[in-house]
Amino acid sequence: MNNFRYHAYTDIRFGKGQVECLAGLVAPYGKNVLMVYGGGSIRKNGLYDKVKELLADFNVYELGGVEPNPKITSVREGAAICKKEKIDVVLAVGGGSTIDAAKVIAGAAYYDGEPWDLVADPGKIGKVLPIVTILTLAATGSEMNKNAVISNMETNEKLGTASHDFIPQASICDPTYLFTLPAMQTAAGTADIMSHIFEQYFQATTSAYISDRFAESLLKTCIKYCPIALKEPDNYEARANLMWASTQALNGLLSCGKGGGWTCHPIEHELSAYYDITHGVGLAIVTPRWMRYILNDKTVDKFCEYGRNVWEIEENDAYTCANMAIDATEQFFKDCGIPMTLREVGIDESKIDLMAADTIKYNDMNGTYVALSKEDIANILRASL
Amino acid sequence: MNNFRYHAYTDIRFGKGQVECLAGLVAPYGKNVLMVYGGGSIRKNGLYDKVKELLADFNVYELGGVEPNPKITSVREGAAICKKEKIDVVLAVGGGSTIDAAKVIAGAAYYDGEPWDLVADPGKIGKVLPIVTILTLAATGSEMNKNAVISNMETNEKLGTASHDFIPQASICDPTYLFTLPAMQTAAGTADIMSHIFEQYFQATTSAYISDRFAESLLKTCIKYCPIALKEPDNYEARANLMWASTQALNGLLSCGKGGGWTCHPIEHELSAYYDITHGVGLAIVTPRWMRYILNDKTVDKFCEYGRNVWEIEENDAYTCANMAIDATEQFFKDCGIPMTLREVGIDESKIDLMAADTIKYNDMNGTYVALSKEDIANILRASL
Repeated sequence: MNNFRYHAYTDIRFGKGQVECLAGLVAPYGKNVLMVYGGGSIRKNGLYDKVKELLADFNVYELGGVEPNPKITSVREGAAICKKEKIDVVLAVGGGSTIDAAKVIAGAAYYDGEPWDLVADPGKIGKVLPIVTILTLAATGSEMNKNAVISNMETNEKLGTASHDFIPQASICDPTYLFTLPAMQTAAGTADIMSHIFEQYFQATTSAYISDRFAESLLKTCIKYCPIALKEPDNYEARANLMWASTQALNGLLSCGKGGGWTCHPIEHELSAYYDITHGVGLAIVTPRWMRYILNDKTVDKFCEYGRNVWEIEENDAYTCANMAIDATEQFFKDCGIPMTLREVGIDESKIDLMAADTIKYNDMNGTYVALSKEDIANILRASL
Repeated sequence: MNNFRYHAYTDIRFGKGQVECLAGLVAPYGKNVLMVYGGGSIRKNGLYDKVKELLADFNVYELGGVEPNPKITSVREGAAICKKEKIDVVLAVGGGSTIDAAKVIAGAAYYDGEPWDLVADPGKIGKVLPIVTILTLAATGSEMNKNAVISNMETNEKLGTASHDFIPQASICDPTYLFTLPAMQTAAGTADIMSHIFEQYFQATTSAYISDRFAESLLKTCIKYCPIALKEPDNYEARANLMWASTQALNGLLSCGKGGGWTCHPIEHELSAYYDITHGVGLAIVTPRWMRYILNDKTVDKFCEYGRNVWEIEENDAYTCANMAIDATEQFFKDCGIPMTLREVGIDESKIDLMAADTIKYNDMNGTYVALSKEDIANILRASL
């Protein structure tokens, strides 16, 4: 087991009606609040009005319209408001995209240069405004972690950045906000959660027994509850377990004692950077192809462990067991209604080599579970067509 | 799933050599440190000298000799030092007993009355000095939670108290400190961890799927690694997994979405209060008898789930499966070398009714998984003789 630091200090308020705590969670930081949100969904479901009502005693400034795959242009806008209005705390109301944008805004508020610097080089992140979130999507885990992913469509870059101070001070997680999600967002969000787990589960470090069993617990949660949520969008138990799975899947818990780089996320980031597709969809498409591509004598036991402990496959032959597990993964995404080929989301052969090259350019793909060359990545993408 | 708050804000530094971080973790709070520790073990293994060396630039005051089942007398002593020397931060170096004492000392430092008040009535806990810990035993989870249990031998009281501010700011968890533990402490510590998990796992709330799967993950961890640690005391993987299990078993994670009172801990607290026995041993003795006593048509499915998911029992008849799981639990403790009857630890029939009455007096035993009367508790204790 590797040495590790675990410091997920977010004050989580989980459950129906927890938004009532909002003013108390924001108040310690000051009166000037920048409320960051995405499209119109929080206006439709009443959350926008609720937040304004709860923060009636605060000076609430707004940055709406943050996009899926949030853009650096939104970050620039938010940072400018922070500087101009002397913002004390950034409140993100939305899913991972909104929260990610809020994080980099909170950092850029104290940064004199171009905000993209903080994405391209996390070392430039200094002081960060406190961040509070109200989560409306179960996917990225951004509500309890230090990560943010921002896109720059001018340069076709989609990069991750991070700071310990990006971890939100508090997050309100109310599963009822998920009731009105479009089915595809539920499915893609679940694929994102599962991919976060896979990235940490399939790593070369052994002996982090607890992290691996926790990972399997969360995978089983996704597999059990996503189909229920798709069939019964207002099933509280399903929504609650998916929401809590999203948070626990990427708050550092699953990587305690483990180590190594991620694979499918870097590859998918290029798909999104070039084609602006839904992150979770891209992950669902790439994941089973990646699994098949790296299945070999060194990895087969781990895939078999995955099959036995997550899919309850009882099969003694290791390769058969591993292949059954990979097939089950692909079939699961398919059954959730996710388009499972690149062509279905409008991606053809033309930029595969370019995207493979950029994956290598922006990420160290040698420290991943199985090291991948540019050619390997292009092959995985071709198998995903 | 019940609503919940999860805010386990401790900065965990886990692994070999992490003590080197000590000065950096203490420094934010000031120069005056009260170092609280137990018996001579940290002098023998060099940790005492190491801490003094690392804190050479601080004013380190000391309270040694904190007992297992820590006594209010130690707390009084520590609180007096805090007041006299204007202590800024309390550093606990030891196991759960030492950390628990440090917590109440940290609260009593700001309290004008008798420190026992803070045990008898947690509502009286106000401001609390920051607490940093160096953990030397895998058992109580005190290194990442708000709980403290203090004994008053004058009144035969052993009571739990708690404050959100009792949660340590930082904890150093180095599994190598466990290498020199006596076998009985390894075994009793594991029984304590498992009991914490049982108390949260066996509750009436359903639908907290993640918490239940996490609980099973940690139970499997204990069952896998305790025998290894007993056979090979310096097996790092075993010690690391047990240490991390102790922390995760009682930092709030397993009760997320669940609710209800505890059973075996209140009963055992009376055994310790009257006979000063090892807490984990008392828990190991009582647990299987409690399980058998409450096995009925309402609980059988949960015990069967426990048997299937933790002990991998493949048995279709629910009662047979449940009984096999309970038997396996008892046998496990026995195999770990724990004395499994009250008589073996010097407890006879004489005070059973008294202890049963005190259990009811200090705890609400109606909100437990299965409500227990005074007679029920006496029956469970008699079955444990």
